[in-house]
Amino acid sequence: MYTIDELREMVKAELEKQEYVGDPYSLYEPIIYMLGDGGKRLRPLLALLAYNLYRDDVEKALKPAIGIEIFHNYTLLHDDVMDDATLRRGRLTVHKKWNSNVAILSGDAAAVTAYKYIEYCDDEYLRRGIDGFNQVAMDVCRGQQYDMEFETRDDVTEEEYLTMIYLKTSVLIAGSLRHGALIAGAPEKDYTALYEFGGYLGQAFQLQDDYLDVYGDVGVFGKNIGGDIVTNKKTYMLIKALELADEATKEELRGWFARRDGNPREKIEAVTRVYDRLHIDELALQKINAYLEKSYAVLDEIQVKPEFKEIFMEVIRELIGRKK
Amino acid sequence: MYTIDELREMVKAELEKQEYVGDPYSLYEPIIYMLGDGGKRLRPLLALLAYNLYRDDVEKALKPAIGIEIFHNYTLLHDDVMDDATLRRGRLTVHKKWNSNVAILSGDAAAVTAYKYIEYCDDEYLRRGIDGFNQVAMDVCRGQQYDMEFETRDDVTEEEYLTMIYLKTSVLIAGSLRHGALIAGAPEKDYTALYEFGGYLGQAFQLQDDYLDVYGDVGVFGKNIGGDIVTNKKTYMLIKALELADEATKEELRGWFARRDGNPREKIEAVTRVYDRLHIDELALQKINAYLEKSYAVLDEIQVKPEFKEIFMEVIRELIGRKK
Repeated sequence: MYTIDELREMVKAELEKQEYVGDPYSLYEPIIYMLGDGGKRLRPLLALLAYNLYRDDVEKALKPAIGIEIFHNYTLLHDDVMDDATLRRGRLTVHKKWNSNVAILSGDAAAVTAYKYIEYCDDEYLRRGIDGFNQVAMDVCRGQQYDMEFETRDDVTEEEYLTMIYLKTSVLIAGSLRHGALIAGAPEKDYTALYEFGGYLGQAFQLQDDYLDVYGDVGVFGKNIGGDIVTNKKTYMLIKALELADEATKEELRGWFARRDGNPREKIEAVTRVYDRLHIDELALQKINAYLEKSYAVLDEIQVKPEFKEIFMEVIRELIGRKK
Repeated sequence: MYTIDELREMVKAELEKQEYVGDPYSLYEPIIYMLGDGGKRLRPLLALLAYNLYRDDVEKALKPAIGIEIFHNYTLLHDDVMDDATLRRGRLTVHKKWNSNVAILSGDAAAVTAYKYIEYCDDEYLRRGIDGFNQVAMDVCRGQQYDMEFETRDDVTEEEYLTMIYLKTSVLIAGSLRHGALIAGAPEKDYTALYEFGGYLGQAFQLQDDYLDVYGDVGVFGKNIGGDIVTNKKTYMLIKALELADEATKEELRGWFARRDGNPREKIEAVTRVYDRLHIDELALQKINAYLEKSYAVLDEIQVKPEFKEIFMEVIRELIGRKK
């Protein structure tokens, strides 16, 4: 099997070919900009890893893999407009660097590009590949719609939140693994198992993100701590706290939400103290571990050489495992 | 062959099934709203007509046909946001009735829905169908990008304009005919000829739209006359006038462009007088007829029963031929 660095290098080289660029260049420039920010390339790597479990000729899976990366970036492009985000990975978002129209239209062009790349596969896998990808793409839209609707609601349940992040985030991670397995001709059982595995992994990954925003080590995490708290973002931490808090604590939390100015440090510390008191950190870690355990259990079912599975898991841990 | 009314009824019934609707309903409601405005259904009808040239079981082509209609409406949804249009076919646009985020995201969901429907075809046609559709979808993005860039330019040439409307409008009309022919198993030559035919037809159609905005009969045309003049829209009429005008006339036109307030009637009359003086009406009619003749010439090449071709042409004339 290839190492993660080798695969990452292949993804990088394939993206750098920019074979999708046509006329006018201005339509494609924001896509190049977006893809050039050095993301982790998690999704194409997962697709290639899944492919590599069954076949050695991973170069055959490179185009679909970067198609998935382009699809992911298209969703980010449109999400950034909808959230009116200013920065992404430390750089101006497309609609801030250019304008909203550029972000909408280049996003649309990126979506078509994604479809073009994803269909690079043997004919026998085409229908299933496109069907699967359509399902993933629609689920991502559904997740984003729920996410936007949750913003104005104060009564989002844990279950609703888990469904939302599943649709918005986990489904694409699951779909990346499934697509890699599909076009490698993996057995039916593995095709299903890798999708399920990716779904659980995605949930663990997103919940870990929520957890690390509060309890992460800024040096390792690479983001400012407390960003979600400052913006009142409805994370697992906040939803769980609102569920478990007594009336007085709820009032306290609502008081902090209402504060738009003032010292962010003070707000972060106060909300974190509420989380501490309610043991939200422990609950989150339990939930993350429960999802990871589920994911490992599903992985046990797939039918590849044990040593392959071992390498695969090691790489997954490296990709996903951001220390607190 | 089916009559146009029968086909229109089938398209309507298929759209009314709303089989694409999922959770949350709020994501799909704007799509239903958009599709419920009683457009002409030109594109699905063209797809069904092309299919019907070769096969009788047009119900097999209904899903791809409405997929094309859904795709068309997705592009309108996003275009309306980009143009900040208030009305479409006499009703509030989606981003005015709801907001921009709703229009962006429901548009994205409509695009995925379109892909899902368009791929309803026998496996042997799938790759080519999806490839063709990707090409059309990308061309529409390219056309919209050119259109937006032309807004801030004063030196758009006739050739550039014709390329832009070809990409933005004609390619989808061409693609509708081609897709219908493809999934009916039409011979290679016809598949190509119908695309070419649709391209010329689309050009004639769009140029006629430009012409009728100035010289149309308001009762028949169904739009207010002079709308393009009031908004300084870069139509064939205006581009041709700027090309042919002497310096004094150009100054006169620019003077009218600069007028944002005042009596629109006065502006429309003055600009129309300039067009009259430069015989833009005749030039436009010549251009429209040239495209129509080209389209008929291509149609002569397709290999179907002559009586089928005759019915087909009659329907096309009925669909396209809006009297002045």
